[in-house]
Amino acid sequence: MTQSEFKLDEAVAILERTPATLKAMLDGLPDIWTRAAEGEGTWSPYDVIGHLIHGERTDWIPRARHILAGETRPFESFDRTAQFTESQGKSLVELLGMFAALRRENVAALLNMNLTAADLERKGLHPELGEVRLSQLLATWVVHDLDHVAQIARTMAKVYGQATGPWTAYLSILRDRV
Amino acid sequence: MTQSEFKLDEAVAILERTPATLKAMLDGLPDIWTRAAEGEGTWSPYDVIGHLIHGERTDWIPRARHILAGETRPFESFDRTAQFTESQGKSLVELLGMFAALRRENVAALLNMNLTAADLERKGLHPELGEVRLSQLLATWVVHDLDHVAQIARTMAKVYGQATGPWTAYLSILRDRV
Repeated sequence: MTQSEFKLDEAVAILERTPATLKAMLDGLPDIWTRAAEGEGTWSPYDVIGHLIHGERTDWIPRARHILAGETRPFESFDRTAQFTESQGKSLVELLGMFAALRRENVAALLNMNLTAADLERKGLHPELGEVRLSQLLATWVVHDLDHVAQIARTMAKVYGQATGPWTAYLSILRDRV
Repeated sequence: MTQSEFKLDEAVAILERTPATLKAMLDGLPDIWTRAAEGEGTWSPYDVIGHLIHGERTDWIPRARHILAGETRPFESFDRTAQFTESQGKSLVELLGMFAALRRENVAALLNMNLTAADLERKGLHPELGEVRLSQLLATWVVHDLDHVAQIARTMAKVYGQATGPWTAYLSILRDRV
């Protein structure tokens, strides 16, 4: 398997593309796709965008600043259900726009930190995971984006699970996370 | 789980967005992401785009025409490794452009078929799966797109599998298809 160490410019290349990826995937799609879920307690593409917005506000950059400030207290816990209240009354296109604006600001903030190799090794305290490095936080930001892009594609694919008939046998995505 | 019957306009909404989704995800990304693979015998994002191009040329629309022509012979088999020769010497940006052009032509061809509900029920013979309906072929085209979008996101996520450190525990995509 291809594995790579964290490199800031390579990470930013993913982070700065995610808003456009999600807009291309979702903007203007019928609700049958954007409001679909994989089952009880799972998230629709609409829910996922709200979750990503909450992460831009409270997770990645605030935690990076927490580490760089040399805080010894653990990070604030992340609220994984905030989007269910925060997205209320907002259209998907509004959420996609909010996410794009926040991500643009956050990538700019990340680049303005002018992080050195030594900074990337600095440590913070996660409330559940214990000691973590700044480079691990930033790598997680990247993988978290890709995880949710894959989740959105998988959730929408399952809408046509039955509709594919015998081809279901070839479409392994229909059997992921079931 | 949200399930829906095949509807042509809803299917086209996904099919016509896939080229822009893949361009937003991949165009200009460093090779560390686009040439990554999940392991022996798996495909990189670059390989996947070549596979999608081969599908546009030989699979979806040719098979739809085969069904509508009332052919009783089975479909031609689909070559799942054609991209390893066909993509040779081509850059990723070239492949993304070829895919976008072919998909545009094929969506136009699909709409020009003016398919009726009765047409969507028409049957063809798959060389391995046996009798399949036109609606199932077209639903499979949609799910196949989404399957490969998810595969690309998953493959790239795994590049940073180790780099996320303790957060690996929360990133379930790193444990998909291992």
